[in-house]
Amino acid sequence: MTEQLATLLVSCADRKGIVASLAQALYGHGANILDADQHTDAEAGMFFQRIRFAVERRDGLDAAIGEVAAKFDMTWRIAYATHRARLAIFVSKYDHCLYDLLLRHRAGELPCDLAMVISNHADLAPVAAHFDVPFHHAPITKDTRAAVEAETLRRLDDAGVELVVLARYMQILSPGFVAARGPAGIINIHHSFLPAFVGASPYHQAYERGVKLIGATAHYVTDELDEGPIIEQGVVRCSHRDAVGDLIRKGRDLEKVTLAAAVRWHLEHRVLVYAGKTVVFD
Amino acid sequence: MTEQLATLLVSCADRKGIVASLAQALYGHGANILDADQHTDAEAGMFFQRIRFAVERRDGLDAAIGEVAAKFDMTWRIAYATHRARLAIFVSKYDHCLYDLLLRHRAGELPCDLAMVISNHADLAPVAAHFDVPFHHAPITKDTRAAVEAETLRRLDDAGVELVVLARYMQILSPGFVAARGPAGIINIHHSFLPAFVGASPYHQAYERGVKLIGATAHYVTDELDEGPIIEQGVVRCSHRDAVGDLIRKGRDLEKVTLAAAVRWHLEHRVLVYAGKTVVFD
Amino acid sequence: MTEQLATLLVSCADRKGIVASLAQALYGHGANILDADQHTDAEAGMFFQRIRFAVERRDGLDAAIGEVAAKFDMTWRIAYATHRARLAIFVSKYDHCLYDLLLRHRAGELPCDLAMVISNHADLAPVAAHFDVPFHHAPITKDTRAAVEAETLRRLDDAGVELVVLARYMQILSPGFVAARGPAGIINIHHSFLPAFVGASPYHQAYERGVKLIGATAHYVTDELDEGPIIEQGVVRCSHRDAVGDLIRKGRDLEKVTLAAAVRWHLEHRVLVYAGKTVVFD
Amino acid sequence: MTEQLATLLVSCADRKGIVASLAQALYGHGANILDADQHTDAEAGMFFQRIRFAVERRDGLDAAIGEVAAKFDMTWRIAYATHRARLAIFVSKYDHCLYDLLLRHRAGELPCDLAMVISNHADLAPVAAHFDVPFHHAPITKDTRAAVEAETLRRLDDAGVELVVLARYMQILSPGFVAARGPAGIINIHHSFLPAFVGASPYHQAYERGVKLIGATAHYVTDELDEGPIIEQGVVRCSHRDAVGDLIRKGRDLEKVTLAAAVRWHLEHRVLVYAGKTVVFD
Repeated sequence: MTEQLATLLVSCADRKGIVASLAQALYGHGANILDADQHTDAEAGMFFQRIRFAVERRDGLDAAIGEVAAKFDMTWRIAYATHRARLAIFVSKYDHCLYDLLLRHRAGELPCDLAMVISNHADLAPVAAHFDVPFHHAPITKDTRAAVEAETLRRLDDAGVELVVLARYMQILSPGFVAARGPAGIINIHHSFLPAFVGASPYHQAYERGVKLIGATAHYVTDELDEGPIIEQGVVRCSHRDAVGDLIRKGRDLEKVTLAAAVRWHLEHRVLVYAGKTVVFD
Repeated sequence: MTEQLATLLVSCADRKGIVASLAQALYGHGANILDADQHTDAEAGMFFQRIRFAVERRDGLDAAIGEVAAKFDMTWRIAYATHRARLAIFVSKYDHCLYDLLLRHRAGELPCDLAMVISNHADLAPVAAHFDVPFHHAPITKDTRAAVEAETLRRLDDAGVELVVLARYMQILSPGFVAARGPAGIINIHHSFLPAFVGASPYHQAYERGVKLIGATAHYVTDELDEGPIIEQGVVRCSHRDAVGDLIRKGRDLEKVTLAAAVRWHLEHRVLVYAGKTVVFD
Repeated sequence: MTEQLATLLVSCADRKGIVASLAQALYGHGANILDADQHTDAEAGMFFQRIRFAVERRDGLDAAIGEVAAKFDMTWRIAYATHRARLAIFVSKYDHCLYDLLLRHRAGELPCDLAMVISNHADLAPVAAHFDVPFHHAPITKDTRAAVEAETLRRLDDAGVELVVLARYMQILSPGFVAARGPAGIINIHHSFLPAFVGASPYHQAYERGVKLIGATAHYVTDELDEGPIIEQGVVRCSHRDAVGDLIRKGRDLEKVTLAAAVRWHLEHRVLVYAGKTVVFD
Repeated sequence: MTEQLATLLVSCADRKGIVASLAQALYGHGANILDADQHTDAEAGMFFQRIRFAVERRDGLDAAIGEVAAKFDMTWRIAYATHRARLAIFVSKYDHCLYDLLLRHRAGELPCDLAMVISNHADLAPVAAHFDVPFHHAPITKDTRAAVEAETLRRLDDAGVELVVLARYMQILSPGFVAARGPAGIINIHHSFLPAFVGASPYHQAYERGVKLIGATAHYVTDELDEGPIIEQGVVRCSHRDAVGDLIRKGRDLEKVTLAAAVRWHLEHRVLVYAGKTVVFD
C-alpha cells in the first residue's frame, strides 16, 4: 500500500486538549504528521490548525476525525494530494496575470488543473491556446449579464471547477454569482493597497495623492466590493518621477506576484477565513 | 578665501533654457556645481531643480540668480551649509521617535541644531536632559489651548526655530498654529499607510481589517488632518499572528525610520512641495 | 493555583508519532497548548518542534516529557515564562546597537533582565547609567586578554548571565571564551550580508564592489569567524550615490533591527540550531 | 519640423564648468533639457551626467557637444529615441526569464527590437515562435564551441545586434566572444546575491549555509566570471522551511525582475560603467 499525502484544516472555539485529540486520532489511524501549524486568536477565542500528514488507509479516517470534530464542534476538511483542484481563470484584456498563472502552472508551482480561461473579450484566446487551456468567450452586455452568468455557472459546475481566479477581470460579478461559488470560491487581485484607493483607477488616485509606495491586494470576493478577506498584499516604492504609466508598469509586477502567492496558498490549503480576515499558514 | 557649500532649490513653469540659464549664472559667479537633480512634471507643465554647488563669493550671487528667476518667474531659495536650521521636536509620552531623532542628531545624520523639545507631558524631560536639549513642559487643556499655542509660537520664534517635528505628538494643532509655521514648517509621522486608516487608532483598524502589511507616513502638516503632502512612507509585513500589540511594536520601528528619513531630506533641502505632493530629490 | 506559561523546544530524528506523543504527554499533565510550530527537515531526516503551553503544575512535567524524550531520543528543554533570562551586552565605542537594545528592553520588547554592559572602552558608561544598567570597563591588551576574558567569564557566571550579545563589540573572542559560553550562548551582529564580505570593513568592500544592496547578519558565535549559524539577515538598497559614509549610516539602521530581532527570537525560545543552521519559529 | 527625443551620456574627470558648458551647448542648439541627472564621485574625482532633451535639428549637434567634450576630455554618446537598439536573447532550457522579457517587450516596457533568440537547445523554439521572434538553435560541444561562437558573432553583427542578454544561458562565453561584444555589450543574470555564492549551484550553497535571504544579480559580463559591473540586485526572504526547490522557485521571480530592470535601464541609457562599477541614473 502506498502512502498518501493529505492536509487537515480545522477551526473551532479554543479549548484544552484540541491539539492532543487531533494528533492522537491521526496517530491512532497510522498517520505520520509531517507539518503542523496552529494559531490561537486569543481575542476571538478561536483555534485554527493545519496538519499535513502521510497516511496509508483513507477509509475510517474521516470517521476518526469526525469524532474529534464533533466533540469540539469543529469546522474541518481533509484534502488529499491525489485530488487536484480544478481552476478557472477569468480575464478581460490585460494579459500579464494570465501569462503569469499559466507559466507558474507549467513550472509546477500551482498544484491544480486549469479547466478553462473565460473572458468577456476574445483578445486573449491565443494565449490560452499557446498553453493548451480551453478558452471561452463570454461577452457581457447589460441585457445579457444574467444569462451569461447563469451559463458560466453551469459551465464551471460541469467542469468541476472549485476555484475561480479573477486575473484583472474587469466585470463586477453579481451577488448571486458570488454566492453560488461560495465564501472562499473566488480570488481577485485588486490593484491597490486596500483599504487605500478602493474602487476604480487606483493608480490614478495614487498618483494624485503623491504616495511613495503603491500596492496590490489579493482577496476573496464577497458581496461588498473590495471588502473581502485579504489573503496577500504586496508593495513597491515609487516617487515623483513615476507618471501614471510607470505606476501601472510597476503595478503589473506587483499584481502578478501577489495574485500568484494567494492562489498558491489557497491551493496548498494554507488559508482559513474567519471574521472577514484570513489565517495564512505559510 | 574658503569655499562654501550651498543648495539652490527652484520651481517654475517649464520652458526652454532654464537649466542652461541657471548653470550659466552659477558658473559665471565662479560656482562649481557638485550635484544637480531636476524633474519636469509633464502633466502639470512644471519644472523643479535642486543644485548643490561650491562657491567662494556669496555677495552678488542672490542678484545673479534673482535675475534668472525673474526671467522665468521662478520660486527659489539658496541654503548655505554654514547655516544650520534650528529644529524643535514636539512629543507627548511615546519616546521611540524622540530617542531616534536625538541619537541620529548626535551621530551626525541630521544637519541641524536642536533648539528644544516641547511636550504636553513632563515624562520625557529626562530624555531631553540626557542629550542636553532644552525641554519645555507645555500642558494643554481645552481652555488653555489657545494661550499655550500662542506662547509656543513665541518661543519658537524667539529661538529661531525653522522646522517643527511632531514625533508622535498626540495633540492636534490649530489651523492658526499651522498657518503661522508656514506650508512646509511642520513634519508629522502618521502611524499608517495613508490614505488607508486615516485618523485614530490605525493599528487597531489595520488589525480589524486583517491587512498583511502595515505602514507609516511622514508628511507636512496642513489644515486638513492627515492630508498634507507625503514626504516618505514605509511598510512592514504582518500576519494573522500579529496581535494589535505586535503591530504597535512593528510600527514603532517603521515610524522612527520613516520620520527620520523625512526630516533628513527636509534638512538637506531635498524636498519641494507642489500641488499637495512632494518632489524628493534623493 | 495560577497557570504558568512555558515553551518546550524539541529536536530529534524524525519518526512517526512524535507530535501525538508530546501532545498527549502535555494534555495528560493538564497543559493547554497555546501555540505549536513544527518543522521536518526531510533531507536531514530531522524533526523540530516548539510548543507554547499553559500549565498549573510544574512538578512531574519534566518526568512526563522526559519519558517521551527518552523513547524518541530527543534533545529538549522547557523554559518557563517566570524565568527571565539574564543578558550581558558587550560594546566598544559604537552606541547605536546598545541604545537600541536598551530602549527595546525598556519598551518591553525583550523578555530578559539586563545584567550588565561590558566594554573595552569607557565611552559608553553614561549610556548604561542613563538606563540604570551596571557597566564594567574591561580594557584589553594583547598581554591582558587571557586574564580579562577569564575575569569576564567569572563575572558573567556570578551574575547568572545566560546570553551574551555582541552589539558591535570590536574584539575577537578566544575559542576558550566561546566554548565556555556554549554553542548558542553568544549572538553577534556582522555588518554585512554574509557570506559576502566576510571579515573587516565590509562597507568599504561593498563600496569597492559596487553592490546595489547592503546587508547585516545576526548569528551565533562559533570558533570560525563569521561562520556561525545565521539567525536573521536584513538588507537595504544602495546606489552609486552612496559614499562609504552613507553605507555606514544605512548599515546602522540595519544592524540595530537585525540584531534586535535575533535577540528577541532567542529570548522567546524560537531558535533551534542544527547542522550549522537555525530553525527560527516565527 | 518635428522634435526628436535624445539622451546624452557623459563621463570625465571632474572640473568646474562642465554642467554649464553642456547646458549652454544644448541650449545654443535649440535643445530643451527635459531631465538631467548628474553624479560626482568625489573619491575618484569623476563626473557623470545623463541629459534627456528634445531637439529639432540633429545636424551640428554632435559638433557642438564634441567641442565641449574635447575641452573637458569627455567620454560621451548621444542616443536618439528614433533609434531602437536591437537585442538578442541567449537561453538554454529555463524559460522564465525568456517569457518575462518577451512579455515586457510586448507590453512596451523595453524600448528595443528583438532581433533573435539564440539557444544551445531547441526546447524554447515554440516560445520564440509564439512571440514572432526568430529563433536560432546553436548547439555547442567542446569541439564546436569556437566555430559556433564565431558564427554567432557573425549573426549578431549581420542583424545589427547591440545588446546580448543572457537569460539563464548555461554556457560560459569565451573571452574572445566577450571582447568582441564590448565592455557593456552583454548583460547576465546570476542567481545569487553576488559576491556571495559565486559560481555553480548558488541556491544549493545558500541552502547549505542557512541564509535568511537569497538574491539575484544582473551584471555586465567581463572576462572574470561573475565579477562584471553590477547593474541591479534583488533579494527575497527565505527560512528553514524553504527546501532547495523553494529557493529555486523564489529565485525565478527574483531573476526575472532583476534582469528586466537591468535591461530596461541599459536600453534607456541610464547606465554608465566606471572602475568596475555602474552609475545607474534612475
